[in-house]
Amino acid sequence: MTHKIILDSDPGHDDAVAILLALGNPNIDLLGVTTVGGNQSLDKVTYNARAVLEKAHATDVPVHAGCDRPLVRPLEVAASIHGQSGLDGVDLPVPTRPLDPGHAVDWIIETIMDNEPGTITLVPTGPLTNIAMAARKEPRIVERVREVVLMGGGYHVGNWSPVAEFNIKVDPEAARVVFNAPWPVTMVGLDLTHQALCTPEVQERIRSIGTDLSTFVSGLMDFFRKSYKDNQDFVDPPVHDPCTVAYLIDPDIVKTRRCPVDVEVKGELTTGMTVADLRGPEPSAEECHTQVAVKLDFDGFWDLIVDAIKRIG
Amino acid sequence: MTHKIILDSDPGHDDAVAILLALGNPNIDLLGVTTVGGNQSLDKVTYNARAVLEKAHATDVPVHAGCDRPLVRPLEVAASIHGQSGLDGVDLPVPTRPLDPGHAVDWIIETIMDNEPGTITLVPTGPLTNIAMAARKEPRIVERVREVVLMGGGYHVGNWSPVAEFNIKVDPEAARVVFNAPWPVTMVGLDLTHQALCTPEVQERIRSIGTDLSTFVSGLMDFFRKSYKDNQDFVDPPVHDPCTVAYLIDPDIVKTRRCPVDVEVKGELTTGMTVADLRGPEPSAEECHTQVAVKLDFDGFWDLIVDAIKRIG
Amino acid sequence: MTHKIILDSDPGHDDAVAILLALGNPNIDLLGVTTVGGNQSLDKVTYNARAVLEKAHATDVPVHAGCDRPLVRPLEVAASIHGQSGLDGVDLPVPTRPLDPGHAVDWIIETIMDNEPGTITLVPTGPLTNIAMAARKEPRIVERVREVVLMGGGYHVGNWSPVAEFNIKVDPEAARVVFNAPWPVTMVGLDLTHQALCTPEVQERIRSIGTDLSTFVSGLMDFFRKSYKDNQDFVDPPVHDPCTVAYLIDPDIVKTRRCPVDVEVKGELTTGMTVADLRGPEPSAEECHTQVAVKLDFDGFWDLIVDAIKRIG
Amino acid sequence: MTHKIILDSDPGHDDAVAILLALGNPNIDLLGVTTVGGNQSLDKVTYNARAVLEKAHATDVPVHAGCDRPLVRPLEVAASIHGQSGLDGVDLPVPTRPLDPGHAVDWIIETIMDNEPGTITLVPTGPLTNIAMAARKEPRIVERVREVVLMGGGYHVGNWSPVAEFNIKVDPEAARVVFNAPWPVTMVGLDLTHQALCTPEVQERIRSIGTDLSTFVSGLMDFFRKSYKDNQDFVDPPVHDPCTVAYLIDPDIVKTRRCPVDVEVKGELTTGMTVADLRGPEPSAEECHTQVAVKLDFDGFWDLIVDAIKRIG
Repeated sequence: MTHKIILDSDPGHDDAVAILLALGNPNIDLLGVTTVGGNQSLDKVTYNARAVLEKAHATDVPVHAGCDRPLVRPLEVAASIHGQSGLDGVDLPVPTRPLDPGHAVDWIIETIMDNEPGTITLVPTGPLTNIAMAARKEPRIVERVREVVLMGGGYHVGNWSPVAEFNIKVDPEAARVVFNAPWPVTMVGLDLTHQALCTPEVQERIRSIGTDLSTFVSGLMDFFRKSYKDNQDFVDPPVHDPCTVAYLIDPDIVKTRRCPVDVEVKGELTTGMTVADLRGPEPSAEECHTQVAVKLDFDGFWDLIVDAIKRIG
Repeated sequence: MTHKIILDSDPGHDDAVAILLALGNPNIDLLGVTTVGGNQSLDKVTYNARAVLEKAHATDVPVHAGCDRPLVRPLEVAASIHGQSGLDGVDLPVPTRPLDPGHAVDWIIETIMDNEPGTITLVPTGPLTNIAMAARKEPRIVERVREVVLMGGGYHVGNWSPVAEFNIKVDPEAARVVFNAPWPVTMVGLDLTHQALCTPEVQERIRSIGTDLSTFVSGLMDFFRKSYKDNQDFVDPPVHDPCTVAYLIDPDIVKTRRCPVDVEVKGELTTGMTVADLRGPEPSAEECHTQVAVKLDFDGFWDLIVDAIKRIG
Repeated sequence: MTHKIILDSDPGHDDAVAILLALGNPNIDLLGVTTVGGNQSLDKVTYNARAVLEKAHATDVPVHAGCDRPLVRPLEVAASIHGQSGLDGVDLPVPTRPLDPGHAVDWIIETIMDNEPGTITLVPTGPLTNIAMAARKEPRIVERVREVVLMGGGYHVGNWSPVAEFNIKVDPEAARVVFNAPWPVTMVGLDLTHQALCTPEVQERIRSIGTDLSTFVSGLMDFFRKSYKDNQDFVDPPVHDPCTVAYLIDPDIVKTRRCPVDVEVKGELTTGMTVADLRGPEPSAEECHTQVAVKLDFDGFWDLIVDAIKRIG
Repeated sequence: MTHKIILDSDPGHDDAVAILLALGNPNIDLLGVTTVGGNQSLDKVTYNARAVLEKAHATDVPVHAGCDRPLVRPLEVAASIHGQSGLDGVDLPVPTRPLDPGHAVDWIIETIMDNEPGTITLVPTGPLTNIAMAARKEPRIVERVREVVLMGGGYHVGNWSPVAEFNIKVDPEAARVVFNAPWPVTMVGLDLTHQALCTPEVQERIRSIGTDLSTFVSGLMDFFRKSYKDNQDFVDPPVHDPCTVAYLIDPDIVKTRRCPVDVEVKGELTTGMTVADLRGPEPSAEECHTQVAVKLDFDGFWDLIVDAIKRIG
């Protein structure tokens, strides 16, 4: 089946790969990209989203800019990981398609309300500000979307604090809204995405595709490798965001476990932590609307990425 | 001078009086009423706003419905004070003007952006959800509005907890956004509004105007008197919300003191408290963008109310 | 009647005056002074307590040193107010009586358990660490003491934050223990003690007593006046701690109001606030074990101080 | 080498096994048992400690009762796990040795101060109230003990909340004091102790020792098995507390990893969580005074238990 998705993102090196996977896989229908302040400022990530689409010849995909800062707190960006541009390490093409008019929050609402119920999947890969704003502005979207598959959080792993991941930590209140709304939520967190390492072998597979786009992706990975090495003591960089799209394409590639998940917003040491209750037997989908990603099929995942880059050409 | 205002409210007995004061005073140009879930559910307060305008022959004033629940938390209503309808105690006319299309948040943003900078005053008298959403969705409104004059909070007085007032306590995160945005904010809190008591003498002044509208207002006050007596141990009910409009009409009626104000969102006993720093000398408007209302000219205030009811006819 | 008291303090300029009032008033039987890290480090305030007793010829009063830091948090001292010694501005005599053996917490417990039930009053004028430790180590003291009359907190006034007072803010967890234990607690907070100003007229009354001790107290006040002027923008310094003893001597001098009081330990802006619920009618002593001091008889208070200094000679 | 230990506990089925391991292993010199309110009320766990020592013919080991409730919060017991007596499922002998005089906190302090520096190991297996009280009452013990090896917490596992373990959750403030004092702390948490399962094979090994004591232990395990099955959905019960003693006897049996650990005391969902920072390379003992237990040698552990029960006879 084909998934109609809205990618709500803050590109970002791994967001860029998520966009490419969504564009290059036949089972994904990317209705549009919306942007949110996160890895870098809204202006920068919006430009980056447009430039990545340009690079992938996808000028038919609209881009709508959203919120420039979190629901309640000031913006904190991840320049240490993604550089000053948010997509350091490569030359970006100048986008030919102008930025689409209309706020991301409105476009998300309209797209959901204008499509059949149960047909639109939200794929947030940045802070959850736009999604929370949309759910608050038009509460009916919550029962109308098919599901939310988000990159963020972690049940045992943190990166922006010992126990919190960047996307959730920078806007924990928005995350709390999203995890507590009764739509189906799949949390693709660091537990999963730290398995999606771009090893030298993987990168060579990408590079050797031999297209301009594959060179571009390999360039992104060069920068990402270095910043993850310097900042997080990783040998190979984890390519978080496309794991969400991979899960939609083939749930066998991203194994999940159902469990309650909520977000700590008051802790002194734990704010932004996704608190998953893994005690006891796994609940059913009727009992529990949230699940967490636990195990990645490494080869299957990278096959999807390589295939998508090839198809885009 | 004439103040162009947007009244963002959740009527509510005292909200109704605020609407009437805004309609009946020549120095106020009421551009529209927006509504927010608070004293009662969004549906009910929106109907109430339209009915009050109908009662006051103000069918030219648009009403836009906004958010039905707080930014992050679930909705808590004040049925103990305002009854099941939100405006118990009187018969409401059926509104002839249909509800205006367009979300309150969007209409607030558009109105501010379409008018000259520095000309629009926001007057929120309910939870600050719509205002916070607007400031997040379109950050440019913050420097474009003239000022925000809100009913809520208290520097020494609480009603929904020992130290928190209802409007702030039900959506403290929205309040935090509004108090921390760098626009001029005047907090008309319980310290001031508990001086705006509708004594029997005052109510008799209103009743004896002898119009259908004055009977309506007196009926509102009958109910309000009883619910404040039963729930908050007040002899006479405090008529909070019109104090904001009265301040705009004549700042001599509502004396203010400049001081930093922020909102506690994490306390176990203090969440929703407006924390005012009254230590040391009073800062200047350049140093401090927030001020709190401290002293009401009781007679001047009620003169304005009586005059407005008379003018509306 | 005579009150047998334990003064638990961290001298401190105003603590010193509290000791003198306890020594010089015939209705107070000062069983001992215990010390706690607060205004300055434990070593310094313990030395100061001994030196003040020496100065007042009270070498029969034992001094027991207690906790050197708060229950949970690191110690924060008030050097900006009390100077590097904790009692800057005067020459201290060398204490002839050695520091008494035994930890303050143990001595407090033993004294309470060795005396008849209902006969010992605790008068804490520093952080409540020792008192909380004693209540936890020997819970039976809670029903055995007569009452706790403490200097700390404020229902409308803060000094170490907009809404928190120093003694409570530096050890809010201890304060929470003390206010929640079911013994009678009288909070003599900043609302009251900011009325106990040492005006130039008052200071001249003290100075003109003409004894070595009165010169000593006047010297303390000179320093205190300057540090309160420089740090808290006060014209005259508030002499907090002796207000507790004055209340015991004559409750007409310190009017109180009964109300529930608890301590915020989690707030972002409000930690250390004493949250008093002043809504509704005043509860009875049976309904509510806490009360707050509200109104000082200024002349009566200073008469007591002057009289005590004279009596000590 | 022989470890001189103080076992601070709240027996409790697994606490009882910890006492037996300490008594029956030649490398452990059990100086005394101190008790704290936790699994059950102080009275009950103190009686249980004395009865277990009686059962093991260890009437030379003193028992000192300590705090009956947490540092700041009210007591919460674990009756669902340990029954109404705290040691349900077996008949307890009547202790012949009277309860030793002197508060546990004082006895801990005296024992540490009276022994050579670096010779006493604290082994807390209940809430950390006594240990925190001792560190606050006599701060010099912190540099004088050899180390603290405690059962509590978990870096990836909770039982009393999704992310908090019972001992830490019931007194998080005490835990914060203990983890932040600069003594060496080994946290033997649920990550480790959930490996110490009393399987039917293990239990049969114990039962078949054939002594009165082994029957007693097997009876404890019968009850423990049932309550863990009913309450925590475990097939075999985890025998937490003796893992601490096993680590002291042979560190190869309990592998550890060094990492910073702190305790959340303010979280809405996370209070009582031991927050371990496992990011980046493992720090040295000089850089980091805390470590967490990660891997149990299952067979080696149970060999120690069986051996100890045999030796006691």
